[in-house]
Amino acid sequence: MTSLKDQLQHKIDFKTKPSGALGRLEEITLQLGMIQNTLSPELKKPTILVFAADHGIADEGVSPYPKEVTWQMAMNFCSGGAAISVFCKQNRIGLKVIDAGVDYDFPAGSPIIDAKIARGSRNMMIEPAMTLKECRQAMKSGAGFVRQEALTGCNTIGFGEMGIGNTSPSSLLMHRFLKLPIKACTGKGAGMEGEKLDHKTTILKAVSEKYDPQTPEETLATFGGLEIAMMVGAILEAKKLDMVILIDGFIATAATLTAIQFDASVRDNCIFCHASEEKGHQLMLNHLNATPVLNLGMRLGEGSGAAVAFPVIQAAATFLNEMASFDEAGVSNKAESTEVQRS
Amino acid sequence: MTSLKDQLQHKIDFKTKPSGALGRLEEITLQLGMIQNTLSPELKKPTILVFAADHGIADEGVSPYPKEVTWQMAMNFCSGGAAISVFCKQNRIGLKVIDAGVDYDFPAGSPIIDAKIARGSRNMMIEPAMTLKECRQAMKSGAGFVRQEALTGCNTIGFGEMGIGNTSPSSLLMHRFLKLPIKACTGKGAGMEGEKLDHKTTILKAVSEKYDPQTPEETLATFGGLEIAMMVGAILEAKKLDMVILIDGFIATAATLTAIQFDASVRDNCIFCHASEEKGHQLMLNHLNATPVLNLGMRLGEGSGAAVAFPVIQAAATFLNEMASFDEAGVSNKAESTEVQRS
Repeated sequence: MTSLKDQLQHKIDFKTKPSGALGRLEEITLQLGMIQNTLSPELKKPTILVFAADHGIADEGVSPYPKEVTWQMAMNFCSGGAAISVFCKQNRIGLKVIDAGVDYDFPAGSPIIDAKIARGSRNMMIEPAMTLKECRQAMKSGAGFVRQEALTGCNTIGFGEMGIGNTSPSSLLMHRFLKLPIKACTGKGAGMEGEKLDHKTTILKAVSEKYDPQTPEETLATFGGLEIAMMVGAILEAKKLDMVILIDGFIATAATLTAIQFDASVRDNCIFCHASEEKGHQLMLNHLNATPVLNLGMRLGEGSGAAVAFPVIQAAATFLNEMASFDEAGVSNKAESTEVQRS
Repeated sequence: MTSLKDQLQHKIDFKTKPSGALGRLEEITLQLGMIQNTLSPELKKPTILVFAADHGIADEGVSPYPKEVTWQMAMNFCSGGAAISVFCKQNRIGLKVIDAGVDYDFPAGSPIIDAKIARGSRNMMIEPAMTLKECRQAMKSGAGFVRQEALTGCNTIGFGEMGIGNTSPSSLLMHRFLKLPIKACTGKGAGMEGEKLDHKTTILKAVSEKYDPQTPEETLATFGGLEIAMMVGAILEAKKLDMVILIDGFIATAATLTAIQFDASVRDNCIFCHASEEKGHQLMLNHLNATPVLNLGMRLGEGSGAAVAFPVIQAAATFLNEMASFDEAGVSNKAESTEVQRS
């Protein structure tokens, strides 16, 4: 019996176009079919969950923005004024904003979903970012949000984040899991350049030297953040539910790298939506053997790269489902004679 | 008085995101604002015109597909089964298919718009592809179709093409206008590899050596094709009407390069939608100092790259029009103190 992969490739190859002429879209189509175990993959109720949390490490001056921006931007996501809000609206993607651990009490009636585990992670210069208990709770909570979406018929899920200071935990996770020097993993984030970037790198080096976690879970608890742990749990659950997983930029890719330490098969369901300008992202993509969908030099987070890339990923499903084959369209294929073929 | 460019840049910079964090989208936004002479650019009634024609040079075996595929695919565009049909439908882009010179009589009542100038261009191994009269007529006709769209309120127009053999005239135009060797300009097209590509290159060298046209118009008439000449006229007219021009891949870029010989300012209105896998496309993009929106390894033509890229270009307009500024959202900007700003 022909394998599903071969059947998908055959279906792709006999669409009315030169073989391979849709390039990367053809690879994405194949991946979608394999994830959904079908010759007619469909992206249903695409949704982006944005997890927000604060970071104790922000006290060390690793971001140019004050911590208040975390809650302010979370409010902005909900009121429709942020990049992720407008891109989700444009591309008809559902958007939910989840408080994983913001150091702020959102007003009652706010559309931000309350899953606050603590008022931010701890300052890693002093103690681990999270206890194991907090980390597990965050992962479990993230998984729950994904199950909830799946129950409504969503089969395509992306993840965004908001957390002033959260490139720092991401760099530390990358450094640990890829065994690369801190310097190669540390970039300007929201705008740390020159001496400020040197300062950030020095802080992260000091943090790395302070701890020696052994398991992926200990590593995530020590160096992660509440929104990152929630995203790791969410990614693991989305894989279990055979969902298409839209991976955004630097922080989401660090979460993916972490999830892969728990379950390597997660990789199969991930579509890496864009190449971030944040230093280190390309190294992670290389390690994951991932070709991003977009290369637009974006470095915003929030899930914005996933939201902008979505219609391109949709195009991959569209062509497989809607294009005619040579036979169906009565178009001569090059493998055949020049005699006109009519179906 | 502050220039429009400075005003646009200021508006972009004060959206709720780190400065420059939307990367290439910010550059596209700036271009859209400058084209439309506004701080709130909008892409109205986006439309793709696909020009179809046959090519005498196809008789020399420069394509792996038989000539009949030109009319068969034109029919396929209209019946909704081709890549350009499904991508336009997905992204709500209008699509019109125009017979610029197909060697076939389309049935009465066919939605293909009749603007047939001849039943294909002539075999350049024997005589110039078009007479000057035919070339001018094609350019004029292309301009007319663009004016017609503009009258309906369309301000964003892309161009596609269908014509078995049409990478050959495109390579010749590129070779002449960029003064690059034929070999650097000749690629596999719809699938000419190894010896077949050598044969195509030999034919194009022989054609190039046979003629010495002087003006851009003579060059286009000698080496072009009816759909390419129509596209050149269409591009020139779209520039005159201050439209946003979506440029697809190899053939559309060769047409753009040709249009630029007539009016260099055309370049300002062009958005280069994707980097084609077709050899030579990247050289043309470099010459035009153009960074393509997508890099998906596509090489299909039809305007398909423009159709897939459209939502990404739309995202550039969306964020400028719909995102909140720091002030509007009450989000602290890094240039300010950590005190919370509320508007």
